[in-house]
Amino acid sequence: MSSNPNPGRTVTANGREYRWMDRPLVIVCVDGCEADYITQAIQAGVAPYLDEMCKKGASLLGECVVPSFTNPNNLSIVTGVPPSVHGICGNYFYDRENDEEVMMNDAKYLRCETLIAGFSNAGAKVTVITAKDKLRTLLGKGMTTAMCFSAEKVDQLTEAQNGITGVLELVGRPKPSVYSQDLSEFVFAAGVKIMAKHRPDIMYLSTTDYVQHKHAPGTPKANDFYRMMNGYLAELDAMGVTIALTADHGMNAKTDAAGEPQIIYLQDWFDARIGTGKARVILPVTDPYVAHHGSLGSFATAYLPEGIDTQKVYAELRKLSGVELVLSRADAAAQFELPADRIGDVVIVSERLFVLGTSPARHDLSGLDAPLRSHGGVSEQRVPILLNRRIEGVAPNRRLRNFDIFDLALNHAA
Amino acid sequence: MSSNPNPGRTVTANGREYRWMDRPLVIVCVDGCEADYITQAIQAGVAPYLDEMCKKGASLLGECVVPSFTNPNNLSIVTGVPPSVHGICGNYFYDRENDEEVMMNDAKYLRCETLIAGFSNAGAKVTVITAKDKLRTLLGKGMTTAMCFSAEKVDQLTEAQNGITGVLELVGRPKPSVYSQDLSEFVFAAGVKIMAKHRPDIMYLSTTDYVQHKHAPGTPKANDFYRMMNGYLAELDAMGVTIALTADHGMNAKTDAAGEPQIIYLQDWFDARIGTGKARVILPVTDPYVAHHGSLGSFATAYLPEGIDTQKVYAELRKLSGVELVLSRADAAAQFELPADRIGDVVIVSERLFVLGTSPARHDLSGLDAPLRSHGGVSEQRVPILLNRRIEGVAPNRRLRNFDIFDLALNHAA
Repeated sequence: MSSNPNPGRTVTANGREYRWMDRPLVIVCVDGCEADYITQAIQAGVAPYLDEMCKKGASLLGECVVPSFTNPNNLSIVTGVPPSVHGICGNYFYDRENDEEVMMNDAKYLRCETLIAGFSNAGAKVTVITAKDKLRTLLGKGMTTAMCFSAEKVDQLTEAQNGITGVLELVGRPKPSVYSQDLSEFVFAAGVKIMAKHRPDIMYLSTTDYVQHKHAPGTPKANDFYRMMNGYLAELDAMGVTIALTADHGMNAKTDAAGEPQIIYLQDWFDARIGTGKARVILPVTDPYVAHHGSLGSFATAYLPEGIDTQKVYAELRKLSGVELVLSRADAAAQFELPADRIGDVVIVSERLFVLGTSPARHDLSGLDAPLRSHGGVSEQRVPILLNRRIEGVAPNRRLRNFDIFDLALNHAA
Repeated sequence: MSSNPNPGRTVTANGREYRWMDRPLVIVCVDGCEADYITQAIQAGVAPYLDEMCKKGASLLGECVVPSFTNPNNLSIVTGVPPSVHGICGNYFYDRENDEEVMMNDAKYLRCETLIAGFSNAGAKVTVITAKDKLRTLLGKGMTTAMCFSAEKVDQLTEAQNGITGVLELVGRPKPSVYSQDLSEFVFAAGVKIMAKHRPDIMYLSTTDYVQHKHAPGTPKANDFYRMMNGYLAELDAMGVTIALTADHGMNAKTDAAGEPQIIYLQDWFDARIGTGKARVILPVTDPYVAHHGSLGSFATAYLPEGIDTQKVYAELRKLSGVELVLSRADAAAQFELPADRIGDVVIVSERLFVLGTSPARHDLSGLDAPLRSHGGVSEQRVPILLNRRIEGVAPNRRLRNFDIFDLALNHAA
């Protein structure tokens, strides 16, 4: 393989130092990629490249950020730090002073630079391709010359905003539907074409978990997804690039045997316990794309009125069937490395097979055409970390995070 | 349906009162039946009766006993009480005084009567059919007239020991291998034939998790198992019996994406930390049938030498990647309702994707022909509870256990 053209050159971002890449680096964030999806695809014989990648490279388990949602984790991956530093701890937060719920998909809510912007500004060619557009502006923050676009809006690209146009023609596939496996496939297909044509130094590919929300590991549609991914990654590998793959979060069934979702309606609980509307429950999974999970995840936060006996309320919450953790703001901020000013007075995490809702009327479950699978909790914190190169010099007792993926790929690849 | 032939008649066992059955009752303990196995089988269209059973009857999630192993849970189900009362908290325990590891598969270790013996002695016809023989003597304790046999030793039945002979001929299937789906299928096939011929009042069917240890929910071999089970349960239902189904424990992948088992070797850890052989690690999953899990589960207990700083050791154990809980004997006995005299000084529970071992040389992984799936921890505590009849009069905030299944079926079926 080629030796590093820039030996000794490094980029520092958010207190971490990264070596310049010795060959193009493709970081893949596979949305909702519970490790067993890959295991089962390999077992079924549909993912021979992923099998080879594990054998010739490295396979590890790491921990994602809790809440185990998409935005906090994608932002941790591209910044190398937890939400306590970068500020994005969900899709939205509650601004108590102005009594409004604020979407955090604008780059102004990001409290630090990304490491990919650091590389971009140091002269690296950077390409960012996301499935949904909600992530694009956050991930693209601070980069003036990068290619940065979403499959969702691939028909609306401008040089000024995206640094590239004509991707539909380059890829030769129709614009995908936002609710489809195609959306993620377009990310990979575009990545392969752009790597072949432009050979960027860093490519960040981020998919959507549409398939993972519906299909369990090893089932036919899940295996179809990983067969698809396997093919594109094999093409990228053949171009002599480093591939490092992780997930924003895992994925679990949130149902009983009949397939009925196991929902704890927290707003109703607070209303009955301390009075209607006294507490405000925030489900930071909520976003404009809810059909595949009905805004039901395993993490919630709540703002409580003054003067209530919080310890008593917490103790009662802990007794609810399916509740795993109840933490005060300070404890949650410390344990999960979250920005204390963007979470409520209390954080509630549900068990693996349970999700947290507000009130039945506020969750549209009509879009659920398969038993609910979701994420958000500690039960979805373990995620795969795969590299197509061996790694060295990682302390054996080090707590590995998904947001160490750039560090592993740039500083530890053998 | 027929009205209860014995209205008002009850049997009391271990402090709980059970109504006499109004029709034959079949309790099924499906070994390792993570709820998603049933969900996925229904989704795949191979389990129409299970779908119907959920719709016309009841589907709930309950909690099994931790350690989430087979024997403690089967004994809890047939006694209606936790291991702190019945005494069986694993396959074996360490007798410190005599420095020997003692198998607990003899009925003398059972500290209370079973409720099925209570019914048997009150005149009910009871049939117990297990997959493996290890459970048979424990489950059959105290019954003098019941039919009680295992599929494993179905060719060695005697009237004196088993209360029935000629089962191979009655069922018309060959004796199954102990490592096969056939072993569980034989349990169901024999149950159907015996229900048709003898119509016992209570039938307890207990399968083995050979399939569940190898195959994830929704994958072809798992669906084959549930298709098979679905057919036999439909036959039983057609005979006008009550069916109540639960599991001894759930089942999870214990691997990374590459399918490598994630093992924490505790004996090695203690040896390095406090001196070789000073601590004794007991894995209560260990039994003579290890090929499908290599004696690797998510629960361990350890006996520690005098004079060490236990709090410091516990704190270090808690820091190990993959360790979920570290509890003193007293705390573990209280939290999991275990007999304190049959567990070690400390109990260690690993996270969902991790198992606990002793030393690499003491685990034969050569029998693992599929990525390790196992159980034993809190992560396998939630299990399905299904009945083919609606239930009523169950308090909404009641903590349901798998060992409430007789109570639900006898006292709450509508």
